[in-house]
Amino acid sequence: MGGCSSQSCHHCFFEYETERMIVVKSKVVGSVFRLIQFLILFYVIGYVCVVQKSYQETDSVVSSVTTKVKGTGFTNTSDLGARVWDVADYNIPPQGESSFFVLTNMIVTPNQTQSTCPELPNQSTICMSDSDCLEGSNDVRGNGIQTGLCMNYSETVKTCEVLSWCPLEIDINLPEHALLVAAEDFTVLIKNSVTYPKFNFHKRNILPDVNSSYLKQCEFNRKTDPDCPIFRLKDMVSEAEEDFQTMAIRGGVLGIMIDWNCDLDWPEHYCGPKYSFRRLDNKIPENNVAPGYNFRFAKYYKTTDGRETRTLIKAYGIRFDVIVFGTVNAVCNWFLLTCTKRRDYYSKHKFTYLDNIDDNAGEPVSYL
Amino acid sequence: MGGCSSQSCHHCFFEYETERMIVVKSKVVGSVFRLIQFLILFYVIGYVCVVQKSYQETDSVVSSVTTKVKGTGFTNTSDLGARVWDVADYNIPPQGESSFFVLTNMIVTPNQTQSTCPELPNQSTICMSDSDCLEGSNDVRGNGIQTGLCMNYSETVKTCEVLSWCPLEIDINLPEHALLVAAEDFTVLIKNSVTYPKFNFHKRNILPDVNSSYLKQCEFNRKTDPDCPIFRLKDMVSEAEEDFQTMAIRGGVLGIMIDWNCDLDWPEHYCGPKYSFRRLDNKIPENNVAPGYNFRFAKYYKTTDGRETRTLIKAYGIRFDVIVFGTVNAVCNWFLLTCTKRRDYYSKHKFTYLDNIDDNAGEPVSYL
Amino acid sequence: MGGCSSQSCHHCFFEYETERMIVVKSKVVGSVFRLIQFLILFYVIGYVCVVQKSYQETDSVVSSVTTKVKGTGFTNTSDLGARVWDVADYNIPPQGESSFFVLTNMIVTPNQTQSTCPELPNQSTICMSDSDCLEGSNDVRGNGIQTGLCMNYSETVKTCEVLSWCPLEIDINLPEHALLVAAEDFTVLIKNSVTYPKFNFHKRNILPDVNSSYLKQCEFNRKTDPDCPIFRLKDMVSEAEEDFQTMAIRGGVLGIMIDWNCDLDWPEHYCGPKYSFRRLDNKIPENNVAPGYNFRFAKYYKTTDGRETRTLIKAYGIRFDVIVFGTVNAVCNWFLLTCTKRRDYYSKHKFTYLDNIDDNAGEPVSYL
Repeated sequence: MGGCSSQSCHHCFFEYETERMIVVKSKVVGSVFRLIQFLILFYVIGYVCVVQKSYQETDSVVSSVTTKVKGTGFTNTSDLGARVWDVADYNIPPQGESSFFVLTNMIVTPNQTQSTCPELPNQSTICMSDSDCLEGSNDVRGNGIQTGLCMNYSETVKTCEVLSWCPLEIDINLPEHALLVAAEDFTVLIKNSVTYPKFNFHKRNILPDVNSSYLKQCEFNRKTDPDCPIFRLKDMVSEAEEDFQTMAIRGGVLGIMIDWNCDLDWPEHYCGPKYSFRRLDNKIPENNVAPGYNFRFAKYYKTTDGRETRTLIKAYGIRFDVIVFGTVNAVCNWFLLTCTKRRDYYSKHKFTYLDNIDDNAGEPVSYL
Repeated sequence: MGGCSSQSCHHCFFEYETERMIVVKSKVVGSVFRLIQFLILFYVIGYVCVVQKSYQETDSVVSSVTTKVKGTGFTNTSDLGARVWDVADYNIPPQGESSFFVLTNMIVTPNQTQSTCPELPNQSTICMSDSDCLEGSNDVRGNGIQTGLCMNYSETVKTCEVLSWCPLEIDINLPEHALLVAAEDFTVLIKNSVTYPKFNFHKRNILPDVNSSYLKQCEFNRKTDPDCPIFRLKDMVSEAEEDFQTMAIRGGVLGIMIDWNCDLDWPEHYCGPKYSFRRLDNKIPENNVAPGYNFRFAKYYKTTDGRETRTLIKAYGIRFDVIVFGTVNAVCNWFLLTCTKRRDYYSKHKFTYLDNIDDNAGEPVSYL
Repeated sequence: MGGCSSQSCHHCFFEYETERMIVVKSKVVGSVFRLIQFLILFYVIGYVCVVQKSYQETDSVVSSVTTKVKGTGFTNTSDLGARVWDVADYNIPPQGESSFFVLTNMIVTPNQTQSTCPELPNQSTICMSDSDCLEGSNDVRGNGIQTGLCMNYSETVKTCEVLSWCPLEIDINLPEHALLVAAEDFTVLIKNSVTYPKFNFHKRNILPDVNSSYLKQCEFNRKTDPDCPIFRLKDMVSEAEEDFQTMAIRGGVLGIMIDWNCDLDWPEHYCGPKYSFRRLDNKIPENNVAPGYNFRFAKYYKTTDGRETRTLIKAYGIRFDVIVFGTVNAVCNWFLLTCTKRRDYYSKHKFTYLDNIDDNAGEPVSYL
């Protein structure tokens, strides 16, 4: 419009401008020119497309894990006598979440009540007379509230008396061999289902081609049974290059890594879980605090006269953290899910065989 | 410097080189030329900028969840008699974390003590005489340590005796109807706060425009109350296309997905939680092991003579996993946060209305 | 092939085409030209390379956390008498996971049994006669199953009787000062190990240059001890700009954020944890439901005649959520890990000093 006559506009729009070229006929210059062209082409196709897959969409995994431990152990100690441990005893918390703990060693302090007793002896608790003890004092590293009295801890040592759960736990005599030696043969079933929300892709670590009779008796083995989701505790610890019985004494944390990195442009059965195992806590003594893994918990009872007593357990053991990670790449699926008009229909029906078969009538299987 | 006279340098630097162009005046060639130009422009603006938003920064969500279940159920069984279940009974673990479990069915084995009893009969435990039983044997699928004796399990069957928590649990008679039928009407309050650390963006699933009187009585409904954070358990299971009472018998895992994908270039109130529900465990019987979801836990008691007894509960129920995911994109906010000099001031004051009003004097509300 | 003689092909391939250039000698045009060149160069180097680091690979963090709380508190209430609280009493769950709870206030309802009692009075439970009560009615906001009787709740008020755990909890008299005031001086040891799987990079928040004698007595302080992994609860709450004793009354959720954003192209010791603290629950009264953080749990007992009783505890306190996040960038490491032939050898040996020294013989340290 304006100063531009419709005739000249039309004229300009259909003009094509191009550079005037010079052609240099020289083998040397031509070779260098073609080499540079090839390098650029190679970079674009080889690196950007094949290695980096820059044309693909990516998404991070969303995951759900349940676990179930199986096995029975036996201990015979002076505190507890002969005793059988089943999963309700040694598996804490019991809910079968992605992080589960198997008790392997313990210090048990039974029959504690709220009362007074002399503190464990150390630099700040040893006393000569009551004047060394401060009534109401509460050291963050102590076991209770000082009453202000100085009492005989043993025949030779006197310590300040405290109000606490007495008798106090003496945790310096950790058993040198793990109590629950049988724990190495316990097995755990890990069920993991993952979702890549952007691609509406769902999959489980129990692959579609394994059947329930196999699952009832299989055990994971990297070579012979790489798809079995049942793991012997000792095997997992060995894969992390640790010794189970050594680790069982002071406890530790073992990571069960499940890697779901996938390229959804390939057929779906290429997308499977890859397991690896790694000790997550630190073993170096010079750079460590509270080595191993332990925690204290108590069982509370009431005596017939209504007083509360408890059994304090300092539990050592192995915490297994199931850690699921992965990124998925895809270009084909993404186009289908995004661009096709029947998107919802497609999204729902693509993975039908995974979870839409409504049939609960199967007989119960043995891994209950 | 060097061989370059300051005069010639100056000369070169301000030279402008351009190609000599040829103008082809042809409608055909011109049209093709303009079409190609348009396609490139369309690709850059339409795909790179609008669809891919390549100019934006992204960040992944960091999230915190608390949950609180409400409701009371009633059961009447031969084991337990008439009994009311409140949240402290059926909600395990009780802490209101992002994963919570509601008990719907159970097998209770009361008054177990550490003693000996004949094993449950199966291929490997049935015996004719003591010689069939191996003292000290401990099968990972068994219930205890064999004593070496062969005992009457029933009038017709003999099995090897074990040291274990006796009497043993018999878990083949799972009630055909879930015991805690009332669980479908329990409600759960989900509080979720998310952070995108790169953008210093914080938001909660309780949106700024809902007030506490509404929250006291509302219930999530995708059409009428999409912003209410209180969910009826039955509704969530229905949205996942499952039947609550069927799922309650053997248990299962239900994912409560909260999607926080946001584009922060839009006004902030467009950035809200989107809820969806999905069953996460597997229902296909031919490719499954341990269908449903259950775990065992025990309550420990002491008798008057100091012996430990326990009530073993095999708990079936629905575990709800609150799964929060999302990526946020932004260009405007990012520039403001990064480039402005008063960055800290701005970062702190941008979200003032969300959480800097220090006023705790509100009266207690009913959802305690 | 085809119409192309081998002579002419060879000819074409080594031709080099270039544009014929015009050189414009003008200071103005030249200046503009150079400015545009500079801007493009500045954008590519300054923004794409330095700010965006587009040439780098990125990966998200995989993390494992253990926590251990230390400290003893004292309460003196009419319900419980003088009582010392240790970690087994106030730390729920006890396992030392990434989310832990410290009890600071509570409402205790001892000696509950399954029996009948009049409901707490409110609009829907107050009655004049039995006809106002519906036998079997079970309100989701009520405490049990109505028996159909109308009973005296107090001398002036009658309410419908329910079957429930009686006596019912009366939770309107929350103590105005937190019971466990000493909790502010409790300390927590946080052990965090992170992995960037793509780069096979592992690191812990206990840095290689701190020794165990320092860890035995240090306490985190942003200025003087930024690398100490032991945190005083009160300090963390203060950093989140909250008052501990105020927060302790009704409870709350505090996020302990550990930021592991790293650039692996820099020397590894630049890659360390950055701690920050933030209150995650909401304090605004007009837009809130169930302010603070609490949950109910029960301890179960059996009387001598075999009846079950329980102590119901409505626990208020602070839940600490350790939230680990981070993305790592790297180009050098990635090339080494990907391209070198001795990849596995390199991957394994790179981080030797972190965890391959097999020596468990260190003496036990005090933070047990």
